[in-house]
Amino acid sequence: MLRGFSNKRNHLVARTLRNAAEQDVCPKAYIGQSQRCERVAKPTSNNEIPQGLAYENWLSFCMTAGIHVAEMRFNKPISNANEIGGGHRENRGPHMMRKVSVASILALVSSQAIARDDLMMSARQIFRPIPKVLPAIRDNPVTPEKVELGKKLFFDPRISVSGIISCNTCHNLGTGGVDAGPTSVGHGWQKGPRRAPTVYNSVFNVAQFWDGRAPDLKAQAKGPVQASAEMNATPDHVTKTLNSMDDYVGMFKQAFPRDTPSVSFDNFAKAIEAFESTLTTPAAPFDQYLNGNASALNDQQKAGLKLFMDKGCSSCHRGINIGGQDYFPFGVVGKPDAKLLPTADKGRFVVTNAVGDEYVFRVAPLRNVALRAPYFHSGQVWSLEEAVGIMGEVQLGTKLDDKERSDIAAFLNALTGHLPNIEYPMLPTRTNETPPPSLGR
Amino acid sequence: MLRGFSNKRNHLVARTLRNAAEQDVCPKAYIGQSQRCERVAKPTSNNEIPQGLAYENWLSFCMTAGIHVAEMRFNKPISNANEIGGGHRENRGPHMMRKVSVASILALVSSQAIARDDLMMSARQIFRPIPKVLPAIRDNPVTPEKVELGKKLFFDPRISVSGIISCNTCHNLGTGGVDAGPTSVGHGWQKGPRRAPTVYNSVFNVAQFWDGRAPDLKAQAKGPVQASAEMNATPDHVTKTLNSMDDYVGMFKQAFPRDTPSVSFDNFAKAIEAFESTLTTPAAPFDQYLNGNASALNDQQKAGLKLFMDKGCSSCHRGINIGGQDYFPFGVVGKPDAKLLPTADKGRFVVTNAVGDEYVFRVAPLRNVALRAPYFHSGQVWSLEEAVGIMGEVQLGTKLDDKERSDIAAFLNALTGHLPNIEYPMLPTRTNETPPPSLGR
Repeated sequence: MLRGFSNKRNHLVARTLRNAAEQDVCPKAYIGQSQRCERVAKPTSNNEIPQGLAYENWLSFCMTAGIHVAEMRFNKPISNANEIGGGHRENRGPHMMRKVSVASILALVSSQAIARDDLMMSARQIFRPIPKVLPAIRDNPVTPEKVELGKKLFFDPRISVSGIISCNTCHNLGTGGVDAGPTSVGHGWQKGPRRAPTVYNSVFNVAQFWDGRAPDLKAQAKGPVQASAEMNATPDHVTKTLNSMDDYVGMFKQAFPRDTPSVSFDNFAKAIEAFESTLTTPAAPFDQYLNGNASALNDQQKAGLKLFMDKGCSSCHRGINIGGQDYFPFGVVGKPDAKLLPTADKGRFVVTNAVGDEYVFRVAPLRNVALRAPYFHSGQVWSLEEAVGIMGEVQLGTKLDDKERSDIAAFLNALTGHLPNIEYPMLPTRTNETPPPSLGR
Repeated sequence: MLRGFSNKRNHLVARTLRNAAEQDVCPKAYIGQSQRCERVAKPTSNNEIPQGLAYENWLSFCMTAGIHVAEMRFNKPISNANEIGGGHRENRGPHMMRKVSVASILALVSSQAIARDDLMMSARQIFRPIPKVLPAIRDNPVTPEKVELGKKLFFDPRISVSGIISCNTCHNLGTGGVDAGPTSVGHGWQKGPRRAPTVYNSVFNVAQFWDGRAPDLKAQAKGPVQASAEMNATPDHVTKTLNSMDDYVGMFKQAFPRDTPSVSFDNFAKAIEAFESTLTTPAAPFDQYLNGNASALNDQQKAGLKLFMDKGCSSCHRGINIGGQDYFPFGVVGKPDAKLLPTADKGRFVVTNAVGDEYVFRVAPLRNVALRAPYFHSGQVWSLEEAVGIMGEVQLGTKLDDKERSDIAAFLNALTGHLPNIEYPMLPTRTNETPPPSLGR
C-alpha cells in the first residue's frame, strides 16, 4: 500500500497505473495525443512513472508516495516571475530543462507548512493553488498580441457559418465560462450531446473535452468551429472571413510575424488558446487557505474539505484544477441513472476504442463549480448538493447525509476565484469580401 | 417656399407637416405614443409647430426656416456639464423648463462659425454633433447603479426562455450594435422579419424600432423579450429569474430604492434604457468637423457631405443621429425592388392603420453606418455604395454616378465615432429557484 493514501485512493491510483501500463504507446493511447509526452515526467530506472500522467499528477503522486523524481521538464512561463503555484517551480530560460529533486520540493513545502494545522498540511499534499503567473503553453509562446487577437476571435460570431454563434455563446465568460445548459445549442437550434465545459482554468486540464479527445486548447478550438451542430463552419470559411478584414490580417501579422501566411486555421486556434490560457481565476478562498491563511475557509468549509479528502473525493478531484487530470468511469461503484449517463454516450471509448474506457470521462475540474450548474456531462443535475450526493454513491459507494453534502458543497463554494476583467472587444468591420451568414444546414 | 431649402426638402417638410396636420391627436397617431408630447416643442400662436415632431427636428427646422420658437422644454442631463451638442442647451435643475429663443441659438451658432467655410456653416444648420454629455431620459433619471444593472441585463441570456439569447445577441456591441443579418435569428432558430437596428446612439431617435412603435428605449426593451421569434419569454419569466438571484435583487434595490418591489418588468426595462442611453459614439470625424475642425474631413468626405446636402439626402437624414427623426415611405419617388421592400411588411401602417403610412419607415439613423451592413429594414444590401445609389433613385429620383456614390460613402465613413469601452459583466449566479432553460416553442 502506498504511504499516505486511503484504500480508495490506492485503488484509483492503481487503476491509473494499470491503465497506463496496458497501453504500449502511452500518450497516443492513454491521453490521445503524442504531444503530451513533453508534459510528463521522464521515466527513470528507479521509478515507474505512469506514462501519460501529466506532471502535475505525477509530482503530487511522487511527493506523497515518497518516490524520487530524477528529472523533470518545464517550459518557460510567459512572464519573468520566478514562482508558480507553491513556489517550487523555477524557470531559467526558454524551454529550459532542469533537474528538480523531490527532496528539495518537499523541503520547501514543509517549511511553508510549519505551525499550520494538519488539515492544511494534508490539503497541500493533494491540491495546489492557482499559479500567480500564467502557465506556459506548449508550442505556442503567449504574447500580448496573440492574447488580444484571441480575445476578438473568441467573441466573434462571424467565425460560425450563421454569423451568430461565437465561442462565448457556449462558453459564456459572464456565467462561469459555460452556457445555460443542460447541453449546448448550436447551428440550426440543434442540441449538442454534452454540457459545455468551462473555459476558465481549462489550461490546467490534462486534455480538453469531457473525453479528453483534444490534447490541448489549440486542438480544442478547432472542434466546435467545424462541428455541424455547433458553429457548422470550415477552416476555409474561417480563413476567408479573417482575410476579408484588414484589421484581422494586421493583427495576425503582429501575433505571428514569422508565419507566411500569418492568417491560418492553425494560428486562429493558437490565438484562441493564448487568450484562453489567461482565463484563470486565482485567489479563491481555498487558494488563500493553501497559501497559509487558515481563516480563509470558515468552519463549515473546513469540515467540507476534510470530508472531501476523507471520503475519497480528492482521489480524483485534485491538483490545481481540483480535477481535470485523470479519466475514470462515471459509476466506479454503482451505475448512475440513465438520465445522468445516457447509454448512447460511451465517453472516452470513442477516443480509444478500449472496452475499459466505456463510460469513462475526464474527471470534472471543480474550480468555480458553484457558478456552473447544471452538472455532469449530461447537465441533468441543477443542485450542487445533489451532485455531491450522487458522486458519493456512484463513485465512492458512500451515502452522504444532508450535513455532509452541505459541508462539501460549502467547501466547493470556496473554489470560486477572482474572475478576470475582460474588456468587450470591438471587432473588425466586415467588408464586401466577408462571407455572408448562412442559416441552412 | 421655405428659405434655405431645396425643392425636394420643401416637398418632404411639407409632407411631414401635412402628415401631422392630418392627425387630430398628434402624438398618438403620428408618433404612436402620447408620451412623446413631453419631448416636442409647445405650439404657440405665431407658428404652427408640427405636433409629434421631436424637438431636435423642430429646432433644426425653425432655425433654418427663421421661425420663432417661443418656448421649449428640456430635461436635465445626467451630469453637471453645461453643454449639450453645439452648446446651445443649458440646464439648471431637474426637469427644469426654460425659455430659449431661436435668436440666442442662432447667435451662438453664428459666432462659432466665423471664418469657417460655407460647407461647414451649411452642415451646422442641418446636423449636430453628438453631445459631450449623455442625454436626459424621460421618466427615468440615469444613475450609475441603474447603468451597471442595465449592462448586466443587456448581456444576460437567461432573460430569454432558452437561456442563450441576450439583448447583445442581436444588438452585438462588438459589431456596431447589430447582428450579422440580413435579419435577426431568435428562439428556435426563427428568422425575424427585419434587420436589427443598432443600439448605439438609439437614445437620439424620435422613437424605437423601424416603425417607431415604441416611444422610447424602455418601451423598446420590453418587446424582444416577449416576442416569440426572439427571446420568447414573459414578464413573469423575467421577474422570476431576477428574483431568484440575490445579487440581482440587491442591485435592483440600489437602482430603484423607492420602488416596492424594486424588481419589476418596468424597472428591468428602465435599467436597460439607462445602460443603452450611455451607448453614444462621440468624436467621429464629422463631429470634429461640426465642432470647427475643418481638416477633420478629407476632400472626398467634404465632397460627399456637399453631395449629401445638395442632392437632398440630408432632408431626412439630419440632426444628431443623421436620421432617426422622421417617417417617410421607402420609395418616395420610385418603388424599390420587392427584395428590398417585401410587400408583406407594410411598415408603419401596422402602427397607425393610416393608409398613408403603408411602407413608411422611420428614417434610418446613419451614425456608424459603415460598421453595420447589410442595409435597409430587409437587410438585403451589403455594400454601402450600393445602398447610397438605391436611396438616390427611390427616395430622390436621382441617379448617382460612381464617383458620387463613392464620395457620399466616404462621407458616411466619417460618421464612425468612438465606441465606448465596455467591461464584460460577470453575471449573478443562478440558484435552484432560477427557471431552467426551455428550448421548445
